[in-house]
Amino acid sequence: MTMSDTSDIRAGERTVAWDGTTDAGVIFIGRIHTPWKTVFECPRRGQIEGPLCRIELFDPWTEALDGIAEYPQAEVLYWLHLSRRNLVRQSPRDNGTTFGAFSLRTPNRPNPIGTAIVTLEGIDGRMIMVRGLDCLDGTPLLDLKPDRDCFIPKAPPTSGDL
Amino acid sequence: MTMSDTSDIRAGERTVAWDGTTDAGVIFIGRIHTPWKTVFECPRRGQIEGPLCRIELFDPWTEALDGIAEYPQAEVLYWLHLSRRNLVRQSPRDNGTTFGAFSLRTPNRPNPIGTAIVTLEGIDGRMIMVRGLDCLDGTPLLDLKPDRDCFIPKAPPTSGDL
Repeated sequence: MTMSDTSDIRAGERTVAWDGTTDAGVIFIGRIHTPWKTVFECPRRGQIEGPLCRIELFDPWTEALDGIAEYPQAEVLYWLHLSRRNLVRQSPRDNGTTFGAFSLRTPNRPNPIGTAIVTLEGIDGRMIMVRGLDCLDGTPLLDLKPDRDCFIPKAPPTSGDL
Repeated sequence: MTMSDTSDIRAGERTVAWDGTTDAGVIFIGRIHTPWKTVFECPRRGQIEGPLCRIELFDPWTEALDGIAEYPQAEVLYWLHLSRRNLVRQSPRDNGTTFGAFSLRTPNRPNPIGTAIVTLEGIDGRMIMVRGLDCLDGTPLLDLKPDRDCFIPKAPPTSGDL
């Protein structure tokens, strides 16, 4: 399939020409283990009371986990590796009605990065147990940070804070 | 400066060996205009009542904006382009006390992706006026989507929703 192939899009959907050029690179720092083996099974959004999932960190990044256990909630960023990146107008219900990709939380977007707020249920070495994810089993991990709502900045105030 | 250079790190901070290899590429789909010209001026975190900032979309991605105006809040993802990526243990106060990068919301992380929740104040063509950002003027834009708290999925339920 080429980037401009439109044979498999829904009525009203639109793609743009994108030649595959990128501006910066991401590192897959881990892998996410969930109960969902196909995109058709994935919940449309994560639930804090959803099933327990495991986030596996790869070396050499495990040392960067130190201190995360003190937070009740974290923000997780992951790479939606099966996504289509050039589908700017999409029809979620396949009924002819379309929306711009940036007005949806669809995995199909120019930079297929998913975000989730999860509860931290436990840490065992390089494995972090969480609830609240909605991604496919095997999804590459990009980042993990304390949820903004429970993090107090540790750096001194700047002029921009005032 | 090479990736293993440690001449400018603070007491107790640690870097890991990373050869610059990446696994996937991101596209800079726009540029963020803020009042902060140096990292020393940037607020430590965005404030919903903070200054008006402008998000500029580049072609060919502007068409994907259609529909965003109906949401009061959006999630913005951006590339923290001046960040150091191999600093796994950091000392935000430069006082000898260190934390793992994943237990901080520091810009210095393996994948330097910032996230913010912003209020949408207006849209004018390819320009989106928002409040709530904390990033440097000129920061590359990666993604824009409705805030999870005000978005109702449009796709039909899946087995994972039940």
